[in-house]
Amino acid sequence: MPETAAPNLVAAVSEARHWDQVMAMARIGAFTDADGNEGVNRPCLSALDREARRVLIREAQGIGLGVSVDSWGNLFLRHEGTDATLAPVLTGSHMDSQPNGGRFDGIWGVMAGLEAVRAIREAGIATRRPIEVVAWTNEEGGRFAPGCMGSMAFTGFARPDTWDAVADKDGITVKDALAEHLAAEADLPRRPLGTVEGPAPHAYVEAHIEQGPMLEREGQDVGIVSGIQGSRWFLVEIQGRTDHAGTSPVSLRQDAVQDAVRAITALNALMHDPTDVLRFTVASIEVSPNTSNTVADRVRFTIDFRHPDNVVLQARGNAIEGVIQSALRHCRFSLTERFHAAPVEFQPPVPDALERAARAQGLKAKRMPSGAFHDAQFLVPHCPTGMLFIPCRNGVSHHPAEYASPEALAAGTRVLAQALLELAND
Amino acid sequence: MPETAAPNLVAAVSEARHWDQVMAMARIGAFTDADGNEGVNRPCLSALDREARRVLIREAQGIGLGVSVDSWGNLFLRHEGTDATLAPVLTGSHMDSQPNGGRFDGIWGVMAGLEAVRAIREAGIATRRPIEVVAWTNEEGGRFAPGCMGSMAFTGFARPDTWDAVADKDGITVKDALAEHLAAEADLPRRPLGTVEGPAPHAYVEAHIEQGPMLEREGQDVGIVSGIQGSRWFLVEIQGRTDHAGTSPVSLRQDAVQDAVRAITALNALMHDPTDVLRFTVASIEVSPNTSNTVADRVRFTIDFRHPDNVVLQARGNAIEGVIQSALRHCRFSLTERFHAAPVEFQPPVPDALERAARAQGLKAKRMPSGAFHDAQFLVPHCPTGMLFIPCRNGVSHHPAEYASPEALAAGTRVLAQALLELAND
Repeated sequence: MPETAAPNLVAAVSEARHWDQVMAMARIGAFTDADGNEGVNRPCLSALDREARRVLIREAQGIGLGVSVDSWGNLFLRHEGTDATLAPVLTGSHMDSQPNGGRFDGIWGVMAGLEAVRAIREAGIATRRPIEVVAWTNEEGGRFAPGCMGSMAFTGFARPDTWDAVADKDGITVKDALAEHLAAEADLPRRPLGTVEGPAPHAYVEAHIEQGPMLEREGQDVGIVSGIQGSRWFLVEIQGRTDHAGTSPVSLRQDAVQDAVRAITALNALMHDPTDVLRFTVASIEVSPNTSNTVADRVRFTIDFRHPDNVVLQARGNAIEGVIQSALRHCRFSLTERFHAAPVEFQPPVPDALERAARAQGLKAKRMPSGAFHDAQFLVPHCPTGMLFIPCRNGVSHHPAEYASPEALAAGTRVLAQALLELAND
Repeated sequence: MPETAAPNLVAAVSEARHWDQVMAMARIGAFTDADGNEGVNRPCLSALDREARRVLIREAQGIGLGVSVDSWGNLFLRHEGTDATLAPVLTGSHMDSQPNGGRFDGIWGVMAGLEAVRAIREAGIATRRPIEVVAWTNEEGGRFAPGCMGSMAFTGFARPDTWDAVADKDGITVKDALAEHLAAEADLPRRPLGTVEGPAPHAYVEAHIEQGPMLEREGQDVGIVSGIQGSRWFLVEIQGRTDHAGTSPVSLRQDAVQDAVRAITALNALMHDPTDVLRFTVASIEVSPNTSNTVADRVRFTIDFRHPDNVVLQARGNAIEGVIQSALRHCRFSLTERFHAAPVEFQPPVPDALERAARAQGLKAKRMPSGAFHDAQFLVPHCPTGMLFIPCRNGVSHHPAEYASPEALAAGTRVLAQALLELAND
């Protein structure tokens, strides 16, 4: 394949328009933190999510794309190819944010897909295959854990009703939130659910901010992602007994907070990694009744454990239960694995196409693994898959200080556009 | 004083009526837990609180008591004495419950006061002094911490506006909740605020379940409380930085959960007490943003520390800040002392009157300290004060399994009635 840039296409990607559109999305759920950073709070399946989708839908319809939605709320914007019988090239990401998250994580990949398709059309280039831009439902898992529900349902990684009973902090279930969401978008054509009800895409490409410091530190323009480390998520529930904080002797308590502290301390030892490759995080704790003068009878905490080596991921993940069992002194507990994704490696076609596009455009590109998980990992068994990273400031994400420059966004979108074009003419 | 029972008075306390009235209160905010225990959820200054107060007010008015409320929402039911110039004997407790609490903690002391006054009136006994039954606002501190706000304001222990900005978990402030509450009871006469705006009571007697196992274990009918251990409550706020759980190296994080675990572990060492007299409790933890895949940037946790010896209470309480400082590895923190009550000892008149009444009625009585704090401790500087305990099953309180028998309630109320009579004829 020719390693030359498509000059019309590169020129058709508008840095200013693209930035304006990303910033327009950032206003939906916007907030400013104490340090003056402008972040976004846009939970999946919320009114804000729907507001952002409506903006996207109007934009897509305005340039002639076909809009449809599947039974999991995944939203598709379709550019038609010259051969309607061919499987589409799929690109996109997600529109939900972390609680108090940033303006680029997820949403940029969707907007980059839209800008890339728009540029292809404005450049007057026809593609053999259709190109579809997707916005996956609930990638973040911030409102309903785990994340990536939309892509997991799309790829048959899990049954579509797996998370029906999962509730947010207000007690609203996934099932009810999804039903409300689909009802609000009943005007959109309903399409079959991904590879479960229909054929696989020809390829999947996801553009995303790096969420780490490497590209910025090394002065790279884009990252060509080689794969995604594995993740295992657990919920630990510790059950003790309430007691009066003033009258009950400490020795006789079944104090769920104290046993949770023991469990986390023991897990820190299990997860210790001098090479600092392993990621172990306890970031959500719920205490009941959570009043200062009643000994807690229940603590729930989450474990987020990731590693690029599946052997480590399995061995240490499987040891969690025994370590907690040994650590608890007075309470009983249960451990639920809520999410388990083995490390994946992207196969050559998509990373190669991305790298060719970057080099053709004279950009510095680096092959690198992804520390974060992404919807892309669930597409791997179904079609050639890859991801494109752009640098973000100080590697910060999931925080209002998350930032990527207009230039970085446009550079990434130009690489994406050229790779989509190549894949859509396969 | 004669150690003889007042037979009319003892007979006038109706075990059945008293139990029915306590159970009627238990239905306001009732819930049943997974084990079939019937508990109560009745936060202070809530609609349920007002519903319970209305039942009490109607009952009091029905037997001819005068009802009034002060600017802190403390509610008073007044039996007139023969000499209107004399300071009243005050008795009562509180009507709010712990979250998912029991049916007796607090409310029994109010209902016992009402039944005792009713029995005195039905027995046709006049008293020189008035007797007032009080329901203190927010003893539990479950909705708004700390507890005992009503009695602290009444006694001038703290300024009435001290807690204006304290908010419940829905963000409603004490100031707003109290204003709404007073507006809803604007039909009741407003009285001066306690010893701040008026004279001190002649004496204060509070009846309460023991909230510990001693009376039941020893077969005692009532406990004559000698004093209350001291309490210090703190709020610890740990401030770190959010990071992506998948991409940020563990060594570079400012993980507020991990530093909170270190702080609690270090505090456990500070508070270790082989004699098991010291009470140290961390029972409320709030994590932000509290999502499983974003490193927490903030953890708030409470400390409830109690000891009967003021030297220990001061020394270890004052060491908390330094211990946390040494324990934290990556985050900064702040420590706020939200409540500080030194140990108190009740002076002789009230405990002696209670013990005389118990012995006159042939009941087994035991002198004992209180492990829990109570509104009574704030009255100590202002008037002779005491408390009466009755046994509760297995010492359980702050839990739906909390239980005291109809016989125990009636026995306690008879002792209270006779002691009130003696104090009101001083």
